[in-house]
Amino acid sequence: MEKSVSAENYESRLNTAVQILREADDILVLSHASPDGDTVGSARSLGCALRKLGKRVRCACSDPFPPQYAYLPECSSDEPFEARLIVAVDIAAPKLFGAKLRPLAASVGLCIDHHFSNENYAAFTLLDPKAAATCEIVADIVNQLGVEFDKDIANGIYTGLATDTGCFRYSNTRPKTLRCAARMMEYGADAATINKALFETSTRARLAIERDAMNTLEYFAGGRAAMIYITKAMCEKAGIRETELEGLPSMPARIENVLAGVTVKEKEPGVYKISVRTNGGVNASKICAALGGGGHAAAAGCQFTGTLASALEKMRALTEEALSQYNGPGAVNGQDVL
Amino acid sequence: MEKSVSAENYESRLNTAVQILREADDILVLSHASPDGDTVGSARSLGCALRKLGKRVRCACSDPFPPQYAYLPECSSDEPFEARLIVAVDIAAPKLFGAKLRPLAASVGLCIDHHFSNENYAAFTLLDPKAAATCEIVADIVNQLGVEFDKDIANGIYTGLATDTGCFRYSNTRPKTLRCAARMMEYGADAATINKALFETSTRARLAIERDAMNTLEYFAGGRAAMIYITKAMCEKAGIRETELEGLPSMPARIENVLAGVTVKEKEPGVYKISVRTNGGVNASKICAALGGGGHAAAAGCQFTGTLASALEKMRALTEEALSQYNGPGAVNGQDVL
Repeated sequence: MEKSVSAENYESRLNTAVQILREADDILVLSHASPDGDTVGSARSLGCALRKLGKRVRCACSDPFPPQYAYLPECSSDEPFEARLIVAVDIAAPKLFGAKLRPLAASVGLCIDHHFSNENYAAFTLLDPKAAATCEIVADIVNQLGVEFDKDIANGIYTGLATDTGCFRYSNTRPKTLRCAARMMEYGADAATINKALFETSTRARLAIERDAMNTLEYFAGGRAAMIYITKAMCEKAGIRETELEGLPSMPARIENVLAGVTVKEKEPGVYKISVRTNGGVNASKICAALGGGGHAAAAGCQFTGTLASALEKMRALTEEALSQYNGPGAVNGQDVL
Repeated sequence: MEKSVSAENYESRLNTAVQILREADDILVLSHASPDGDTVGSARSLGCALRKLGKRVRCACSDPFPPQYAYLPECSSDEPFEARLIVAVDIAAPKLFGAKLRPLAASVGLCIDHHFSNENYAAFTLLDPKAAATCEIVADIVNQLGVEFDKDIANGIYTGLATDTGCFRYSNTRPKTLRCAARMMEYGADAATINKALFETSTRARLAIERDAMNTLEYFAGGRAAMIYITKAMCEKAGIRETELEGLPSMPARIENVLAGVTVKEKEPGVYKISVRTNGGVNASKICAALGGGGHAAAAGCQFTGTLASALEKMRALTEEALSQYNGPGAVNGQDVL
């Protein structure tokens, strides 16, 4: 089969995807490694919908199912079966299948995804890069399949929408996302309880590392820059894994009047991974380029080899320099321009 | 005029409110003291809509306009005028007008509010206690007035919706709230930028007190309880005002496996205000009742007179006792039940 990916003609491609699902009976639904709420919610909601059509379904993932999603329905069929169709949800590239499932990437018949970077590895890909979450696309599929939404399906879809939008905060949220969430609430999604579990619950380790990192906070450049650092010893003391540090680098730039927020993280002894986040138009990528790094205008990264003290000193100097040349809107009031 | 408040017949009462606004020309719109995004957003959006109908409008508040809402449109008319109609938005009781505007409470012709506790002080009150925010009701009014929504009106309404729902996280969010937000985005509301300003920006003082409070964190009852304290000296050091401590008491209960979170805050020397937040059905109100306090099942408060050490000791004992008797769902896995 010729591989097919396009973000054009969403409605017509949606019909094709639905046709592929209708015609298959024994379906394996795959989530990406290090699963998040969108890939898990997509798999479970789609699985539940396919079960309601009388099909046999199995969900699989290279990594264990995260316990915080324990409320999502188990939708795999009891009896074993040989899959006739493999569906990948929210998996943009073969390398994201993870070690266990990686060999199946070449056999995917249908990929449902919202990542612009999708590598077109599947026989047919339903891609909507404007969708806030793959779950938003799954909602369209369930609808088109003619399956009645229920609480299980709604909880899965709501979970994906909330996960990928930071509960509708981020700029990927579109009106369709909010309307989809509204419908899921009407179908019984436990929105407030899901949000509490996803956004208002911290692990002890995460809380400890946040506190310890904030204890290293320093302001410089007249309060227009802020920097924190995290060492391996701090992570060990807090009992936190590398993967649980997500979001920490955005903390310094969240402080009022701060135009550049820097996070220096020890990767291995003498090697530091540096993240720069900026507001008001300061160019983070330019700051990082001086150390051979790069990224986007508001979020960039680089690496530094040396002592912690010299890493901090270097980032102070580079950031001071960038801010001394800066004459943007944030220079006046430190607020983002609306 | 006989005073009138009811949550019944919303549609018919909405029509009456719109009639009152239509018939008035010179309108004063009041926000509550210590203004938040909902009262300010409601006033500005309603003001803009009334201006579009050719009316003269002035917005007023007992307290200064918070700088974080600087993006909201100025809608007051340039020329001075004597108000013929006073409208109160999001003000549930006369005492919430604040010192400067308190005398006007008795002259309010129309109150638009979503607080169940509304004291029915206005000649006519349009109340919808199921609305997540007063802005949700203002959107209905603007619609019914036949005014075309624009970016200014949309930004004001979106601000109120996001403020009162914690960006659609809290249980007061209903499908109508999400659909209203979707419409506001379509009318041009800068959702992502507003959310960044409201939810992803911290003052230096707030960040400092959060960190210092988290440095006092202790776990007890086998990790099923957590407690922090905040003294006046800590607040002075951080440079934070009493009013900026909102939300801090919910921090200890956000930690995984914690069933009871206690916050002890020094009110004046030797007097402590204590907040208890619980998960999994532990009764916070019962814990606080032992010290003559009370509240709801999941959020309660009380007061203690003595030393800080004795306040902490007392709360440890009361919380341990409550948890020793507790046999609810959280006792098993420490997670909220979905």
